[in-house]
Amino acid sequence: MSVTAPLGFRASGIAAGIKDNGNRDLALVVNDGPSRAAAAVFTANRVKAAPVLWSEQVVSGGRVRAVVLNSGGANACTGSPGFQDTHATAEKVAEVLAESAGEIAVCSTGLIGLRLPMDELLSGVETAAAELTRDGGLSAADAIRTTDSVAKIAFRRGEGGYMIGGMAKGAGMLAPSLATMLVVLTTDADLPAETLDRALRAATSQSFDRLDADGCMSTNDTVLLMASGAAGTAPEEAAFTALLTEVCLDLTRQLLVDAEGASKAITIEVVGADSVADAVTVGKSIARNNLLKCAITGEDPNWGRVLSAVGTTDAVFEPDRLNVAINGVWVCRGGSVGEDRSKVDLRPRDVSITVDLSAGRHSATVWTTDLTVEYVRENSEYSS
Amino acid sequence: MSVTAPLGFRASGIAAGIKDNGNRDLALVVNDGPSRAAAAVFTANRVKAAPVLWSEQVVSGGRVRAVVLNSGGANACTGSPGFQDTHATAEKVAEVLAESAGEIAVCSTGLIGLRLPMDELLSGVETAAAELTRDGGLSAADAIRTTDSVAKIAFRRGEGGYMIGGMAKGAGMLAPSLATMLVVLTTDADLPAETLDRALRAATSQSFDRLDADGCMSTNDTVLLMASGAAGTAPEEAAFTALLTEVCLDLTRQLLVDAEGASKAITIEVVGADSVADAVTVGKSIARNNLLKCAITGEDPNWGRVLSAVGTTDAVFEPDRLNVAINGVWVCRGGSVGEDRSKVDLRPRDVSITVDLSAGRHSATVWTTDLTVEYVRENSEYSS
Repeated sequence: MSVTAPLGFRASGIAAGIKDNGNRDLALVVNDGPSRAAAAVFTANRVKAAPVLWSEQVVSGGRVRAVVLNSGGANACTGSPGFQDTHATAEKVAEVLAESAGEIAVCSTGLIGLRLPMDELLSGVETAAAELTRDGGLSAADAIRTTDSVAKIAFRRGEGGYMIGGMAKGAGMLAPSLATMLVVLTTDADLPAETLDRALRAATSQSFDRLDADGCMSTNDTVLLMASGAAGTAPEEAAFTALLTEVCLDLTRQLLVDAEGASKAITIEVVGADSVADAVTVGKSIARNNLLKCAITGEDPNWGRVLSAVGTTDAVFEPDRLNVAINGVWVCRGGSVGEDRSKVDLRPRDVSITVDLSAGRHSATVWTTDLTVEYVRENSEYSS
Repeated sequence: MSVTAPLGFRASGIAAGIKDNGNRDLALVVNDGPSRAAAAVFTANRVKAAPVLWSEQVVSGGRVRAVVLNSGGANACTGSPGFQDTHATAEKVAEVLAESAGEIAVCSTGLIGLRLPMDELLSGVETAAAELTRDGGLSAADAIRTTDSVAKIAFRRGEGGYMIGGMAKGAGMLAPSLATMLVVLTTDADLPAETLDRALRAATSQSFDRLDADGCMSTNDTVLLMASGAAGTAPEEAAFTALLTEVCLDLTRQLLVDAEGASKAITIEVVGADSVADAVTVGKSIARNNLLKCAITGEDPNWGRVLSAVGTTDAVFEPDRLNVAINGVWVCRGGSVGEDRSKVDLRPRDVSITVDLSAGRHSATVWTTDLTVEYVRENSEYSS
């Protein structure tokens, strides 16, 4: 299922030999139409990987025939030789599909600063093309994993008989504007590129953009949405956006739960904000507070660290009107001690932190993880 | 020595019973004049502890007779009862010195959200006053420690026969605008409050403000400078500022080396910047990148994580003109692979990262630590 749940898509995931361990490392997702409308959002990092620079150009045309994705190397900070590698990859996909490279998107994930093994990658493209099937979505989702412990897929059926499917990867560098994260979303609805673009920006702003596991913004983040139109139905934009947001939230949740070395999945809800922007700012400031994240690891309801994180923002609030609940217990009221902190049970994996700014009617939810010994171990040993 | 190195100051540090473990927890530093000129800088956190709110008012008058400091409790997020506790503490010091509470600064450090044990604190003030001596600087420095493994003191002699002394505490929450950090600086130079204020802001902006161990800004940070004028000399402002900066850099270095659970002391030098502000922004973005900090723990010269941190800033630079050296090896040139990364020896405790933005003539240095298993352990277990 996943990206092949909607009609009009084939996919495959194979082991091309890019990863040393022989695992799957190359995925291909092809849109057989009749439509090729597409939209995408990319990392806000100014240091962008070669495939991001390439795919931005491709998607600006509003049409994508196929996307090729590799794990085992990010092709970031590889200069113009790296860009040429991306170009050659797109040309190879175009060749096997008898298409133009201008409609082939490319995504890469893995270590920064290393060239990709192009012989393996290009012959892998031929294998992947030969293995394309209507039920290849799961293999494709498996092939884009790096430190992900599980493949991440989702799909939903919309009113009127269309589908939205998706796959995602990302376990570290989950941050600000998107996580190190590759996401491919597909639909058989028949919608023009401009509608897809609006729907995608609306959906990602409320899902992937609010996931901040370690505050580290990747060079490679890409969320690509392709529409085949094969269901022959054109849903209302609002309904489509809502369904797309559901799929994105589902994948966001999977990314959160699988974040590197995390022992807790933390949902931060900021309420009583003067604006949504304020609520998001406060939520992200809390999500990035290492001391708080360590406290949650230690199952310590340290609301003082929440307040000190709120205090670093420029959101509208008065310090003596702040309220904080941890797992439902209002441990801080009016900027000071509230209910007995010993009432807070932090043993469950899911942790909720609610901050009431007492400054308005807006709210937002941000997700993060705790900071664990395992996170440090995993990220100290990832490369060398 | 430390704060009692300059003439005109007495200090003491005693165990008042605020800490459960019986260690010293209360310090008193008294300026016997003839001058009482003073200046201070405080945390930029909008959630400010009661002693910060109090001391801001005191210092605004330009005169400080004494400062009382306690560890074992931050008196932050304690509401108006907490503010009354700070007020009562200042009144008690004023009483034993036969002075006005309006010239008594108060500093607190420790856990947020707990009231201080006022009986112990107030009787401790009497003991501390009784033990004031000309060589009490080291005891005072010892009494303000929380998780600090050593007392931090510094002093320098200026041309023309004046001294500057200082003590500092801070091992966690070392961040943005000042670390969780209490610093008391003293001098026997005879300078007015306005001059002290300018000199202090200049000195802290180049020292404590550029130390960012874990990105977490405290509610209690205070750097207080008191001048007794007892040396009877009024140095040139530029010379005084330079000497004060030296003392601050010395203490900054001590804070860096003693940061909680750190195994590396990292000096980040950003050169070729369009402005000093750009250089500081880039340096702090690198200093706060958890993935890079983990890589340094693992002795992995992961320059890709440096570039991805640079890329999140709005500093002036072109991605393909970035150069990065780690411990003197230019592992990234022109935004891509440079010298062989295997040449980098990351075994020493001191690590230097140099980033050349190739965008101008300005530079700045920022200090940070790595992110270790011990940091997580220490901060998971600190409170409960």
